[in-house]
Amino acid sequence: MARESQVSITVIRRLPIYHRYLGDLLKKGINRISSQELSNLTGFTASQIRQDLNNFGGFGQQGYGYNVEDLHRELGKILGLDQQYNVVVAGAVNLGHAITLYRGFKEAGFNIVGVFDKNPDNPRYAGRNLEVKHLDGLEDFIKNNNVHIGVITTAKELAQEVADIYVRCGIKAIWNFATIDLAVPEDVALENVRLSESLYTLSYYLRNRENIQD
Amino acid sequence: MARESQVSITVIRRLPIYHRYLGDLLKKGINRISSQELSNLTGFTASQIRQDLNNFGGFGQQGYGYNVEDLHRELGKILGLDQQYNVVVAGAVNLGHAITLYRGFKEAGFNIVGVFDKNPDNPRYAGRNLEVKHLDGLEDFIKNNNVHIGVITTAKELAQEVADIYVRCGIKAIWNFATIDLAVPEDVALENVRLSESLYTLSYYLRNRENIQD
Repeated sequence: MARESQVSITVIRRLPIYHRYLGDLLKKGINRISSQELSNLTGFTASQIRQDLNNFGGFGQQGYGYNVEDLHRELGKILGLDQQYNVVVAGAVNLGHAITLYRGFKEAGFNIVGVFDKNPDNPRYAGRNLEVKHLDGLEDFIKNNNVHIGVITTAKELAQEVADIYVRCGIKAIWNFATIDLAVPEDVALENVRLSESLYTLSYYLRNRENIQD
Repeated sequence: MARESQVSITVIRRLPIYHRYLGDLLKKGINRISSQELSNLTGFTASQIRQDLNNFGGFGQQGYGYNVEDLHRELGKILGLDQQYNVVVAGAVNLGHAITLYRGFKEAGFNIVGVFDKNPDNPRYAGRNLEVKHLDGLEDFIKNNNVHIGVITTAKELAQEVADIYVRCGIKAIWNFATIDLAVPEDVALENVRLSESLYTLSYYLRNRENIQD
């Protein structure tokens, strides 16, 4: 994926971490922090933090540190969190549904405007406060609505087809939970969530504990 | 967290990636692969791949490459996927429920043996094929059952309390979805899933695209 910004993805991935910590500090009423204190909190070196933030502007002052509220707000803007995003979810089962209900996303400006599934009449959805539309209507829906982000929580067999629809309709950001590598054009941002890989680090650890216990 | 194994976490995180690609190759009936071909697939250098795998044994042969089936199986063992794990989930809403239904986990040997929530009678759960027990019963349940992994999908305010219960009951692996840093002893593996951070890389990208469009 071509990054039109000059900032590397490694730096970009640290920004939400800073944003989260600053948000917590704000809630605690702490309004000033040094890069060293931020380093103690985040685990990144103070120098790395300063370097990261310098990509985006002259935050902080020598001898003062950073103003928490200002920095939190500015990082929020940089992360695009001061805007609203229309999001569609393809694959209503399980994760798809979970994503639609995740309160944190709505608060951050991500609005689920449509949920689609191959089997919208699955009895599992009955009783939920969720309108699931048939996947066949996905393309038309996107064309008739201003959708910014496409989520893929379908089975892996459907994932590329859904990605193709998203791309065809002009969506430039895809959040993929399917355990497959998707092919997308260079100007489309693709973020993969690899839950299995995350979980397997735990089974790795448990297995290694057992192997060396006395 | 103390890693009793000598292998660094950076290497460990690559293993499930190799495992996934090898699984796909196996399904396609491809039974032999060179480190260069694996490099083309995964994006890691051939030398990194060989180095990673050398931590665990003499896989592969000069001039031959790797036997896909053998390597997939051996990596599966290293990742502990040849074993069964009993898993409890605290926080049945949304993600918690989604996790319980994620078919891939069950297939990989992760069995959800209990799901707990502060409000087990939430009408949202009615109609689902899911027994949700009250969070108050979590500790007793773990003590009376052989639980290997504890999942945390509660609101962040409850997360540390749940982590403390897990630790107190002897659970050595925690999978945390709450947006908070948990305090756990050194011998407990803690894997955090940061969904917001993942999603914000997309909003960052969308914001930057807009800023430089003509």
